[in-house]
Amino acid sequence: MTIDRPLRFAKGHGTENDFVLLPDPDGELALDAELIRALCDRRAGVGGDGVLRVVRTAAAPEVAGADPAGTAAEWFMDYRNADGSIAEMCGNGVRVFARYLVHAGLAAPGTMPIATRAGVKTVTVPAEGDVVVDMGPPVFTGESVATFAGQPYAGVGVSMGNPHLVCATATPVSELDLTAAPDVDAAMFPDGVNVELVNAVPGAVPDGADLHVRMRVHERGVGETRSCGTGASAAGAATLRAAGRARGAVIVDIPGGRVTVTVTADTSFLAGPAVVVAEGTLDPHWLAEARRQVEVPA
Amino acid sequence: MTIDRPLRFAKGHGTENDFVLLPDPDGELALDAELIRALCDRRAGVGGDGVLRVVRTAAAPEVAGADPAGTAAEWFMDYRNADGSIAEMCGNGVRVFARYLVHAGLAAPGTMPIATRAGVKTVTVPAEGDVVVDMGPPVFTGESVATFAGQPYAGVGVSMGNPHLVCATATPVSELDLTAAPDVDAAMFPDGVNVELVNAVPGAVPDGADLHVRMRVHERGVGETRSCGTGASAAGAATLRAAGRARGAVIVDIPGGRVTVTVTADTSFLAGPAVVVAEGTLDPHWLAEARRQVEVPA
Repeated sequence: MTIDRPLRFAKGHGTENDFVLLPDPDGELALDAELIRALCDRRAGVGGDGVLRVVRTAAAPEVAGADPAGTAAEWFMDYRNADGSIAEMCGNGVRVFARYLVHAGLAAPGTMPIATRAGVKTVTVPAEGDVVVDMGPPVFTGESVATFAGQPYAGVGVSMGNPHLVCATATPVSELDLTAAPDVDAAMFPDGVNVELVNAVPGAVPDGADLHVRMRVHERGVGETRSCGTGASAAGAATLRAAGRARGAVIVDIPGGRVTVTVTADTSFLAGPAVVVAEGTLDPHWLAEARRQVEVPA
Repeated sequence: MTIDRPLRFAKGHGTENDFVLLPDPDGELALDAELIRALCDRRAGVGGDGVLRVVRTAAAPEVAGADPAGTAAEWFMDYRNADGSIAEMCGNGVRVFARYLVHAGLAAPGTMPIATRAGVKTVTVPAEGDVVVDMGPPVFTGESVATFAGQPYAGVGVSMGNPHLVCATATPVSELDLTAAPDVDAAMFPDGVNVELVNAVPGAVPDGADLHVRMRVHERGVGETRSCGTGASAAGAATLRAAGRARGAVIVDIPGGRVTVTVTADTSFLAGPAVVVAEGTLDPHWLAEARRQVEVPA
């Protein structure tokens, strides 16, 4: 893609899962993997875990038919990973996306449908404060064990669309070594599994919630991350279940911040901060220079 | 510091040494360490190795008297490290700073003096292309040895204001393990030393230069970095000296890009890309949210 004019952008994050937002209401940008990698480069670009292109559903032919329920989602989250690959959904990404819509005046505060490659998601954006996304119902898939650095941790499988294994432990999660990928049951998790290690947090539960845990997460194919929206949702659901509750609210403290997971009879909600850090324009000379850097052998 | 209005910023880099620039011509910003750390946070902020506040020398009382030679430097580079500490100078930072002055229309292209806490630096900014900074003369300080992972590398000491040990080796630098800090001669380098490992690059030398090397660097107290302006200058000077030349131009390829070091009878120059990536405004709600994140135990 050739850029010959300043391109608007914003940077935002949800519990330190961070994104470069590209407002493109009329679908004029043809994103290629090279531009996405340059944008997400944390030193030579803006820096982020991925790119969120903000485009009207009507101007995004790739999601025609993505709204079978007729929820009339005006906006489509075109989410790409930092390596340029296409991603279907991201629980933190869609919260940041919706916060940006309100921030930029493209949507009014309130509850809105957002089209994604994984279907339409419902997000609630107050004028200020936590953004809530309907993550769908957790599905329990049975007990299993993850082994980190020779140490086994018993857990319960939870599908949030993607597979999780939530392991409650008495060992403080701050002391765990999550450097290497865990050994897991390949028969139960043929495509790998995201593993959450969870401690109960003693004392009064804040914010009127029912339970309070601290969590670290190892994402399959990635390693430890500071935040994982589906992982927090799985951990909240498993924590409620272990306490004999079918529904309720759980505070989940992750390295990147604090979220609240609420499980109802039908679904689950993830609430947490979603912040626009900055916005502006990208320099038109920058891409050419970035490409020159790539060509230098090192 | 309380920010109650959008604050302008830019992001730039020189060979992947990256900075958050804060235009503050009239010296209205009172930077504190908390704001600097939040700005440089690569996930919850803009992200960078440091902050460059762009302030008129006349509005910066801390550098009154920093221009004893009467060069009438209009602009002062108020450079802070990502951890909030004050830094005196940065060869890549001052090149990015000067590029930004021209980019923003605060200075005309050409040669200009820039005030820093290490005195006035002379920088040349063409309308496009490499930015050149006068780094001062290299001073050779004697031979020594650095030992990485049990393997000794003989080198020559070079002071560029800060201490360097430049080690030419036949082992491809891409194969070296620079994970751990090297063992060095504490009597010769009581404050530690930055160590450059250098390979000669065979074949025709590009761009009309005299010599061509590839370099990796381990910075004292930091670890391996993708770029080090004084380190590249030291490596260029040592390479010329080893070839029996008192002056000349050396292409230095570092992981973050390509620079050219030119040694003259009186001084040395570092030339390389300096790029403004983006500019815009910081969100006034962002700082409050960032502080809330900091308070969550993890």
